[in-house]
Amino acid sequence: MVTYKKNSKRISLTPTEDIVTFAKRKGFVYPSSEIYGGFAGVYDYGPVGMLLLNNIKKEWLQSMVQDRTDIYGLDSGIVTHPRVWEASGHTKGFTDPLVINNKTHERYRADHLLEEIGVACENVSFEEFVSLWNTHKHTVRFPQGVSVQDVGDPTYFNLLAKTNLGSVTYDTQKEEIAYLRGETCQGIYLNYKNVYDTMHPKLPFGIAQIGKAFRNEISPRQFLFRCREFEQMEMQYFIYPGQSKKYFGYFKKLRMKWLISLGLSKKKLRFLPHSKLVFYAQAAEDIQFQYSFGWKELEGVHDRGNYDLTQHAAFSKQKLAYFDEKSNTHLIPHIIETSIGAGRLFYALLEQNYTVQKVSKEETRIVLTLAYHMAPYQMAVFPLFKKTKFQKYAKKIFTSQSNKYSIVYDDTGSIGKRYRRQDEIGTPYCITVDEITLKKNTVTVRNRDTMKQKRIPVSKISTYIEKELIAARKKLS
Amino acid sequence: MVTYKKNSKRISLTPTEDIVTFAKRKGFVYPSSEIYGGFAGVYDYGPVGMLLLNNIKKEWLQSMVQDRTDIYGLDSGIVTHPRVWEASGHTKGFTDPLVINNKTHERYRADHLLEEIGVACENVSFEEFVSLWNTHKHTVRFPQGVSVQDVGDPTYFNLLAKTNLGSVTYDTQKEEIAYLRGETCQGIYLNYKNVYDTMHPKLPFGIAQIGKAFRNEISPRQFLFRCREFEQMEMQYFIYPGQSKKYFGYFKKLRMKWLISLGLSKKKLRFLPHSKLVFYAQAAEDIQFQYSFGWKELEGVHDRGNYDLTQHAAFSKQKLAYFDEKSNTHLIPHIIETSIGAGRLFYALLEQNYTVQKVSKEETRIVLTLAYHMAPYQMAVFPLFKKTKFQKYAKKIFTSQSNKYSIVYDDTGSIGKRYRRQDEIGTPYCITVDEITLKKNTVTVRNRDTMKQKRIPVSKISTYIEKELIAARKKLS
Repeated sequence: MVTYKKNSKRISLTPTEDIVTFAKRKGFVYPSSEIYGGFAGVYDYGPVGMLLLNNIKKEWLQSMVQDRTDIYGLDSGIVTHPRVWEASGHTKGFTDPLVINNKTHERYRADHLLEEIGVACENVSFEEFVSLWNTHKHTVRFPQGVSVQDVGDPTYFNLLAKTNLGSVTYDTQKEEIAYLRGETCQGIYLNYKNVYDTMHPKLPFGIAQIGKAFRNEISPRQFLFRCREFEQMEMQYFIYPGQSKKYFGYFKKLRMKWLISLGLSKKKLRFLPHSKLVFYAQAAEDIQFQYSFGWKELEGVHDRGNYDLTQHAAFSKQKLAYFDEKSNTHLIPHIIETSIGAGRLFYALLEQNYTVQKVSKEETRIVLTLAYHMAPYQMAVFPLFKKTKFQKYAKKIFTSQSNKYSIVYDDTGSIGKRYRRQDEIGTPYCITVDEITLKKNTVTVRNRDTMKQKRIPVSKISTYIEKELIAARKKLS
Repeated sequence: MVTYKKNSKRISLTPTEDIVTFAKRKGFVYPSSEIYGGFAGVYDYGPVGMLLLNNIKKEWLQSMVQDRTDIYGLDSGIVTHPRVWEASGHTKGFTDPLVINNKTHERYRADHLLEEIGVACENVSFEEFVSLWNTHKHTVRFPQGVSVQDVGDPTYFNLLAKTNLGSVTYDTQKEEIAYLRGETCQGIYLNYKNVYDTMHPKLPFGIAQIGKAFRNEISPRQFLFRCREFEQMEMQYFIYPGQSKKYFGYFKKLRMKWLISLGLSKKKLRFLPHSKLVFYAQAAEDIQFQYSFGWKELEGVHDRGNYDLTQHAAFSKQKLAYFDEKSNTHLIPHIIETSIGAGRLFYALLEQNYTVQKVSKEETRIVLTLAYHMAPYQMAVFPLFKKTKFQKYAKKIFTSQSNKYSIVYDDTGSIGKRYRRQDEIGTPYCITVDEITLKKNTVTVRNRDTMKQKRIPVSKISTYIEKELIAARKKLS
């Protein structure tokens, strides 16, 4: 993304602090309910983080909905009719295999234990899983002090989180149970008929949405990677049967291109076909990102066949068909899905861009080398001195730019410290109001990467930054 | 908003169809889980509605966070540590009074029944409520066929929705219960310390966030007005004790101004102080909107004193103080809150702007007279004929504008029908690619309100629309 020349002073990409500590220190991500000792698997995005997260969501909606004439946006509820999750198979099949410690009642993900010793067990049946477990259980590595004798046989634990929202029986003995959605795409299938009836689209067309999903992960881990509450960005593309290959390939390419356009490095991205498909899938590939803990799924592209609409048609007894004028027949469209977690992408951007750079013999700086358009703030504005006339002028600049750019005002500490503060959160441009500004209406603009300053007229700030942002963005392809 | 001249042909503001039907027909709002018979109290925003909803949220964030140097954004989790809701008082006090029909087991909101006959019972204690009920129960109007003898004494029903997310005991007998947040502001109090420690703000400063909240309403009703799942936009402003009056007044004015800037009519907005305050509140006023079913709360401005931070400090045993350098003391800031539901605002905008207008002796049209900048699409682009050369040209225009404006492409039906379709969803400008376009690179631009067309060069579309939008926005103050 930021291309350092060969004689660059950049010496290290190795984090000197834990990314979790960094994320908290700079207001990107806070552990949830921290004052109460924390709540595992949920994170809160802080003042700086929510801006980065919003940029991610904005870019996704722009490319998946706003820039296209064939994909519709949607924003469906988190809680749905309970039958939705029966139709989708989640109440039965959405499970993690675990083994329970008979002494401590701790639970361990049995599949993770197998994967750690190289045994692939994704998408196998329960019987197959038990058989794999029995073959390998004596060689898996349990937590310290735990041995295979301490744990029972594998059982399946359902990941759907329950809620009594919508329950009005007032009879706690048989309270109606609903579920927090385990994936946002079900909201899309539910509304296929509504979108079809009201928007009258022609195949192929898509429906896309961003929203929270919930999974009762047994052991949430790896920071934002595996959470209990997380945000998905999913798109379902409805196509004629027989066109799956074409569109599967198309969306694979498109999604990879998009990830690169956000500044993710090509070298840190790769495709990986699923080793074993879930029974209804025709094809499935992950776009993996090279996290510090290995290559892991960032986005999935899935050929789901006509499974979802067929299931919901059967369970709801509604016709979820498409009328094809050419052939004068009704048909069930097939679906190509793209699915990415906003938090995983956020995490990938943090990890890739957290950079420790030597700037002189004595000094290093931390730079978050985010793509300029993804940075929480495109601009910072500083009064050189903490005096009213400088502050007023700087705030005037703030107000003149805030409608167009994300901008932050800072008047605390030395200018050098303020530059470093902005480097750490990735702000590409820092504008300083000094004595010359008051006389000549010019400011210095300092670039995050070159650390060079330039003096420009105040009246040119907006167009200068615009040009720079466009140029920086062009490089990302 | 749209000011019609005296000789305007506008004849009626009375809806000719139910707003719920309209919202569905045009892709604004769909009932949730409709193919499964519906799920009360939850709504799904469709392709057009999600754009309007996003505009509402964008405008709120712009004015409450981006345009200010003193308010921080936040995006905290929906599920928190259960103790949060004990500290806030919600597990005990967040209740609705209801009476149960002994025969049918139906439940009725006892407070609504009292309010319908003019008995005020907001924020009274349970004892006071029971006393009011006993005084008036013989005059309340029960649903048909139900009499006072059929119902029992009032009981309190807790509105917090439970979930087992985060529960890992695997012992269903004593499964740990968490709650879906009943209001977003608790996430702000939880993160007060984090924001204070990492952003080092000085009083006064605010924290603002948008997010889903959940309440197990006994009888969700009035469409988007009272839902079980809904989206809040809340801001908490932390101030020195003693400055409450000043900032309470400031935010009252500010919020009213903002609502007007979205195109809500001054005549349909009013302040109403709460008749009785909850025990910790120092002052509270609603900004009411005149819905079709009466004046109802749209936004609340509340002086919450130091209740929230004091409660969480006591329950979490953490110091939630502010160190004041001037006086060299620690103090608990007081809080002014502004709180609005995105769905209520969405609903108000639909109701106010749904307009039936007579355009000729024979013909009427439906126009959604939204403020131009709030409309789901600022522009539509049409090829005059469904032929490749026109379609291609129109799509080229689409692509050249979609990065800057929300734009929709339509090539179905006559131009007249397409204009009407855009009128119904509030699109202020329709651009048509015709034969002259192909020869001279000019297009017609048709305005929603005047229905007048103008021919402009294709190269000028962007600047023309920008000027028009800025001018339209200036009128809204």
